[in-house]
Amino acid sequence: MSTSTASKQDCIQNCQVCETTLNNMLTETCLAEGGEHVEQNHVKLMLDCVAACNACVGFMSRNSDYHAHYCNACAEICKACAESCEKVGGMDECVECCRKCEESCSAMAA
Amino acid sequence: MSTSTASKQDCIQNCQVCETTLNNMLTETCLAEGGEHVEQNHVKLMLDCVAACNACVGFMSRNSDYHAHYCNACAEICKACAESCEKVGGMDECVECCRKCEESCSAMAA
Amino acid sequence: MSTSTASKQDCIQNCQVCETTLNNMLTETCLAEGGEHVEQNHVKLMLDCVAACNACVGFMSRNSDYHAHYCNACAEICKACAESCEKVGGMDECVECCRKCEESCSAMAA
Amino acid sequence: MSTSTASKQDCIQNCQVCETTLNNMLTETCLAEGGEHVEQNHVKLMLDCVAACNACVGFMSRNSDYHAHYCNACAEICKACAESCEKVGGMDECVECCRKCEESCSAMAA
Repeated sequence: MSTSTASKQDCIQNCQVCETTLNNMLTETCLAEGGEHVEQNHVKLMLDCVAACNACVGFMSRNSDYHAHYCNACAEICKACAESCEKVGGMDECVECCRKCEESCSAMAA
Repeated sequence: MSTSTASKQDCIQNCQVCETTLNNMLTETCLAEGGEHVEQNHVKLMLDCVAACNACVGFMSRNSDYHAHYCNACAEICKACAESCEKVGGMDECVECCRKCEESCSAMAA
Repeated sequence: MSTSTASKQDCIQNCQVCETTLNNMLTETCLAEGGEHVEQNHVKLMLDCVAACNACVGFMSRNSDYHAHYCNACAEICKACAESCEKVGGMDECVECCRKCEESCSAMAA
Repeated sequence: MSTSTASKQDCIQNCQVCETTLNNMLTETCLAEGGEHVEQNHVKLMLDCVAACNACVGFMSRNSDYHAHYCNACAEICKACAESCEKVGGMDECVECCRKCEESCSAMAA
């Protein structure tokens, strides 16, 4: 497996983990805790990040010539989502998977 | 256009309207108002309904042999979402599009 | 309704029509006709265009701050898909909806 | 982690692997090889299977009360897709991931 294939595989997996971790935390933690956890911008960012990861996985796994657009957007949204999760607090798992996903998407977009 | 093609076209449109109406109301109304609008089961139902409509449109527009499963599930989720929106209140637009989508998905699933 | 809301509504509808038209043509026409209709790059573009429209509708209807990225990518992919459909021939409906979608996505991305 | 949580995690991963494996094989192998690989029913099943896995992951990771509908439909579609891939030939990787996904989705739907 070439380096670039390995990187794409890693990026796909990081996006998949990010998508399902955020979905799980949003529905089980944020919506149960309330307060800052359901603040408009925070939840919108969580939803955007889930959708960004999902689209990114699709374009990468279809070997699309256009995947860089989706990796680039995903990296930017993951960064903002990680910052929002850090501010809200109690969401270390989300912060971690968003940072990891941001890093691999940035590399794939380059 | 045959009756069944007309029905499918209607069902696709009702699902599309339902998906975008719920996305808009969730992010602009529910998340701004808070309180019962961000209650765990309500938001989960809104998200499930958006995803159910989205999947349903895909299976119908791809002329899939399996669309009935997705129409059936979509009808059940739309029904529950309409009831949740009625209970929360101030979401008449959602109630209306969920009821309409439920009706056409039930017909398509038959 | 303000001009920008009207434009967003139009763009959402154009993306939705494009997504379902391409899904229908791909499964009913391209896969039935074979030949150039199932040429690798053409089908990949059709699939990318469906996914691009789908993501774009989600980001616009969730009132996302990041919708411009998805409108921009969708415009570029619609343009390439329209050109591919023109080259293959017999796909006027696809060419038309791709061009229309490209135009409104470009406007929304600006 | 309870047994049921472990099963859900496994099922999510099997769906994710199935989705990306099929996307990759469809775009790199089927569309390059042509012939039976691009036969209408085969490609439609591949696309349905990708969409079924995608929806299934979403409903499971959002801890939805409705996930069983999507696991059930996904199991049925995976079974049909595995059979189609076996008939076409040269798609052992797809057969394997579809069978694995079918098994875990059946268990989750029960």
